[in-house]
Amino acid sequence: MYTCEYLVDFTRSFFVKMGCSADDSQLITDVFLAAELRGIPSHGLMRLKDYYQLWKANRINVKPNVRIVHETPSTAVVDGDNAIGMIAAVRSMEIALEKGSKAGSGWVSTRNSNHYGIAGYYALMALKKDMIGMSMTNANPQVAPTFSVTPMMGTNPIAVAIPAGNQPPFVADFATTPIARGKLVVAEKKGEKVPYGFVQDKDGNPSNDPAILRSGGSMLTLGGDYEHGSHKGFCLSAIVDIFCAVFSGANFGPFVPPSVAYLPVLEKKVGEGTGHFFGAMRIDAFQPADVFKAKMDEWITTFRAAKPAAGREKLIIPGDPEREKEIRFWKEGIPLLPAIARDLKEIAGEIGLEFEVKE
Amino acid sequence: MYTCEYLVDFTRSFFVKMGCSADDSQLITDVFLAAELRGIPSHGLMRLKDYYQLWKANRINVKPNVRIVHETPSTAVVDGDNAIGMIAAVRSMEIALEKGSKAGSGWVSTRNSNHYGIAGYYALMALKKDMIGMSMTNANPQVAPTFSVTPMMGTNPIAVAIPAGNQPPFVADFATTPIARGKLVVAEKKGEKVPYGFVQDKDGNPSNDPAILRSGGSMLTLGGDYEHGSHKGFCLSAIVDIFCAVFSGANFGPFVPPSVAYLPVLEKKVGEGTGHFFGAMRIDAFQPADVFKAKMDEWITTFRAAKPAAGREKLIIPGDPEREKEIRFWKEGIPLLPAIARDLKEIAGEIGLEFEVKE
Repeated sequence: MYTCEYLVDFTRSFFVKMGCSADDSQLITDVFLAAELRGIPSHGLMRLKDYYQLWKANRINVKPNVRIVHETPSTAVVDGDNAIGMIAAVRSMEIALEKGSKAGSGWVSTRNSNHYGIAGYYALMALKKDMIGMSMTNANPQVAPTFSVTPMMGTNPIAVAIPAGNQPPFVADFATTPIARGKLVVAEKKGEKVPYGFVQDKDGNPSNDPAILRSGGSMLTLGGDYEHGSHKGFCLSAIVDIFCAVFSGANFGPFVPPSVAYLPVLEKKVGEGTGHFFGAMRIDAFQPADVFKAKMDEWITTFRAAKPAAGREKLIIPGDPEREKEIRFWKEGIPLLPAIARDLKEIAGEIGLEFEVKE
Repeated sequence: MYTCEYLVDFTRSFFVKMGCSADDSQLITDVFLAAELRGIPSHGLMRLKDYYQLWKANRINVKPNVRIVHETPSTAVVDGDNAIGMIAAVRSMEIALEKGSKAGSGWVSTRNSNHYGIAGYYALMALKKDMIGMSMTNANPQVAPTFSVTPMMGTNPIAVAIPAGNQPPFVADFATTPIARGKLVVAEKKGEKVPYGFVQDKDGNPSNDPAILRSGGSMLTLGGDYEHGSHKGFCLSAIVDIFCAVFSGANFGPFVPPSVAYLPVLEKKVGEGTGHFFGAMRIDAFQPADVFKAKMDEWITTFRAAKPAAGREKLIIPGDPEREKEIRFWKEGIPLLPAIARDLKEIAGEIGLEFEVKE
């Protein structure tokens, strides 16, 4: 177990060593730690090595000039100047919140960015301002549209955070695929098969092989197969891609740049970098804030009272599991897999820092 | 086969007989015909009898005063005054478009409405103004959240329409369930089972019985089961419900009123009527219109060029199948099932009109 303090200090120092400003390093650290605390380690410190290697390869800009390039009272396009994703994303979400506080709602599409960590972080930023927050990103292609075998899209997540009153907020944060890529890696390492509906082989036949992506296979969209509505998952993933990339002028679909340095820069580009989309709506743009919050409390308690299925304790309100983990990890410390800790020690040594591996 | 002209004349006359204004009757007719033409007969004239019976039961208002009750530069709440859904919805979408044209984007949440037909119609309204259109509605409960057996939500659809240049527009219009309720009815009539992942029994066990809803079963959210991401489908359905009902002050979740007169008015209400949510964003709120359209063309042609799966001809760009049907039905006429035609003849007789049944 690591204390939050230890990981915060280390991560912040690491980005300062990479040349980020103190403020930027703190922001990036906040997002990484939020992923660890909320139990989404696939977007946590496991990724630090990828960011570091992109920087070493001169593929990411640690002194970016993130700026608005086009705007209306309720919308903007932001150019991230090839920043580390968190920097472009936090600035963009701040602009969405500012526009939202004036115009009722604010919507920002961001180009020329990179991997931004957990989508939920930016949606959550809205809550303390009594606003509804939204966040989406496109990502490097590994998912095939229904009836196709070409990996055209990333796992393109959507996050929506909605404030409540006495109840904790509603926080949805989900990929538009049945599973995260990480589940395939874990199954493969364990030598296990996966259920049908997660991946297909190179010809589009159903597959239960978690390693199938290495032999031309692809991940499937939410729904799994056409019969179960995978074309609806494709709609969602496509909407995320268009809002993030066509709106902003980022690369879309198969042209989204890799978020790891061991994959080469793509030959063709159709825009600038990776794209994100952010939204912010004031709750009192619709109802007086206290009325809105009381109604959300009623919504949440109504849904909590639904009868559980046989063998299940209760239904899950979106945001509950992550919040429970956040409280626990904050108190008990954050577990890192030994392999991740060893990676961190290695790159720490390279950059002139120390990291303690606790086996 | 019926000509569009015949069905338009009949439907318009029918609503005039019910007491709607000529303009309102025309609007409602447009939405009904769009459903038939786009190959979604479950939301077409099959529903006319339901609307008629709600009116006979004094449960719907044919002389509504649809009005804005709260607004900011980019948002509004509309009270539908218990109108036929199409009337509240078209007015609301017009307000979203108007706000969008001034503020860059416009967002309207509507309460005190009723069944509004196909979600896609309202999203499509944005296209001729070079805007992106969005539409959602909640609906009477028959879908259970993951890990629960209580029907808490409707099939809560989402529609998004995005203009292109030389390519036809991108038009997604989908329920947040694997299938529409109508598929269960058809399977039951044919005496067939359905695949697992569509419905569950009263205890939450997997079921392949299309009639299971009549013995306490429920429909499932997109994803089908937890392993395949049904909790993500629940997130989507919940977001639709909250945007439509909590934002506006409509009934949410299990309290959404029935859209048919043979089901009683619910005892408890937590708001007014059914809720919808509409959005409109100017494409030039993000990019110059010609740049945006050229980029959408590139997006669409890139995706069209994806390699088809074995045995499939091509992937489907959202909106393609409906547009192909629309062109064909417009030319060849609209088929109505004999049972639907007989229903129409029956209610036509009651209200003082004629309808020809073509067996």
